[in-house]
Amino acid sequence: MTESELIEQYFLSTQLPDNGIALGIGDDAAVINIPADKQLVVSTDTLVSNIHFHSTDKAEDIGYKTLAVNLSDMAAMGAEPKWVSMSLTLAEINHDWLKAFSDSFFELANEHSLALIGGDLCRGSLSVSIHIQGLVSKNKYVTRSGARVGDNIYVTGTLGDAGAALKLKSASGNSPDHQYLQSRLLRPTARIEAGLKLAGFVNSMIDLSDGLIQDLTHISRSSAVGAEIFVDQIPLSEQIKNLFSYEEALSLALSAGDDYELCFTAPAETEHSISKLFETLNCPISKIGIIRDGKEIKLTKNDGQEFKSESSGYQHFSS
Amino acid sequence: MTESELIEQYFLSTQLPDNGIALGIGDDAAVINIPADKQLVVSTDTLVSNIHFHSTDKAEDIGYKTLAVNLSDMAAMGAEPKWVSMSLTLAEINHDWLKAFSDSFFELANEHSLALIGGDLCRGSLSVSIHIQGLVSKNKYVTRSGARVGDNIYVTGTLGDAGAALKLKSASGNSPDHQYLQSRLLRPTARIEAGLKLAGFVNSMIDLSDGLIQDLTHISRSSAVGAEIFVDQIPLSEQIKNLFSYEEALSLALSAGDDYELCFTAPAETEHSISKLFETLNCPISKIGIIRDGKEIKLTKNDGQEFKSESSGYQHFSS
Repeated sequence: MTESELIEQYFLSTQLPDNGIALGIGDDAAVINIPADKQLVVSTDTLVSNIHFHSTDKAEDIGYKTLAVNLSDMAAMGAEPKWVSMSLTLAEINHDWLKAFSDSFFELANEHSLALIGGDLCRGSLSVSIHIQGLVSKNKYVTRSGARVGDNIYVTGTLGDAGAALKLKSASGNSPDHQYLQSRLLRPTARIEAGLKLAGFVNSMIDLSDGLIQDLTHISRSSAVGAEIFVDQIPLSEQIKNLFSYEEALSLALSAGDDYELCFTAPAETEHSISKLFETLNCPISKIGIIRDGKEIKLTKNDGQEFKSESSGYQHFSS
Repeated sequence: MTESELIEQYFLSTQLPDNGIALGIGDDAAVINIPADKQLVVSTDTLVSNIHFHSTDKAEDIGYKTLAVNLSDMAAMGAEPKWVSMSLTLAEINHDWLKAFSDSFFELANEHSLALIGGDLCRGSLSVSIHIQGLVSKNKYVTRSGARVGDNIYVTGTLGDAGAALKLKSASGNSPDHQYLQSRLLRPTARIEAGLKLAGFVNSMIDLSDGLIQDLTHISRSSAVGAEIFVDQIPLSEQIKNLFSYEEALSLALSAGDDYELCFTAPAETEHSISKLFETLNCPISKIGIIRDGKEIKLTKNDGQEFKSESSGYQHFSS
């Protein structure tokens, strides 16, 4: 089978949303119409075998996660995802693998009315590079640089679950708790709806790919502010609490990456609006801290003491 | 050095054109403004080590070629290239390699006022995935599907040079002719200016990545037409003629890929305008055939006989 035939079979068979596509897959390039009142939001993320996922991971999980982490970048901008291109590099043509990968990719793409508009298929060691594009109303995108002193700091979902799954990887147990944490690692939820609804309220936003401390440091540096995190307010899943000590779970929540929850800051006066907003979403939020003057990320316990954790540093866990 | 520091050092140091960028590299995504009277043209191409280039090729040639082949897709659409994202996967951090690669990449990017707006750097076996975007005036893009019976068929430049270089790769000679052909393989010229100026005149266009016959077959199928090629009109470089027999050179011109010249079709009545147009470009064009009824690509010699060549088939040489 040629590259074109494989693309035809696995990537063009699904009905795609229109999304302003003037010319789709099959020419030298695709052509899309951008509404005059919108801006284009553009991001790229590559997942490489044995770095970002295990070569033994299931094709359907790889297909899902690659798209989910890219969708998560759109969520963090408050953007509506619209178009995606994919470069897939494969060591060999395995039809079962391709079917499972593409089915899972399109399941998630369809959920978000995302249209595949291009890409290519190459021979080489397994990696998937996704280029995603979305729309925002003019100047309504949310950056890392808008945090202001006094802003509340929030996160969606629960933190540390993906890191916990990585830590448990070699463990032999396969309890429901373990399975739940694995599912958070393999199939993170891109918080698109939350990102879109929050865009009108928040001052800054980022998705948690590198761990809370490191990602909050991005906000802190870009916004030239510090932050205080009330560590006991950090949301932890029942499952992580069942399998780890509280200290271990907190350390994972602070420093392990791959959760793809949103972290955002919003002025104190929007607190009520944000609570109301989240009643309309099926995604919990937690207020976990306050933006402070300075440059420091301070970790405080309920008793007012500083929280110290070996692994709460600034290492880059994701690469 | 972290991924961010490497990106900072090699990919953010160059002054970039504005190109309507509202938010550049450094956040979860970039944000760009699209003029209301334009459409966005989107393409992706990945080059993988030992498939699309040799792992021993120089970094500066890899940096140049990866961008050139992507620019060539913009040329084939008649689009003005504007924005590029790059996913670079490297087995190891080699600063000399990165400097040579990025210098060469930006030399070509700057030549076309192209802005780098995103990407990532990963560990893994060497590959470069480029996502390029450009603009066209509304509905002025050129497709593969617009060829009409009676159109003249043209190509830019000379054909077969890149294929000749591949064929000579194992040869020990290093004559100026050999060097010239190598340079056409390693540093193809994206015909951006020609593509832009032609967009108003032509009915269909494609860039020659897979070889004339195969790429013309794409036009033929998409446009539901046939074609007759007058093989003796196919432009051949002096260098290929010096190193190969005429028959061999013609076979390479017809079937080898990687030339990245443009092939386009235009109504007979535009012949004079196209000749005039090309006096303003420093890029030769040659009229090499006519679009015919039917489905067939017919190869005709000056004496009216059919040209038959072993290697004039439809094989996919590029993958």
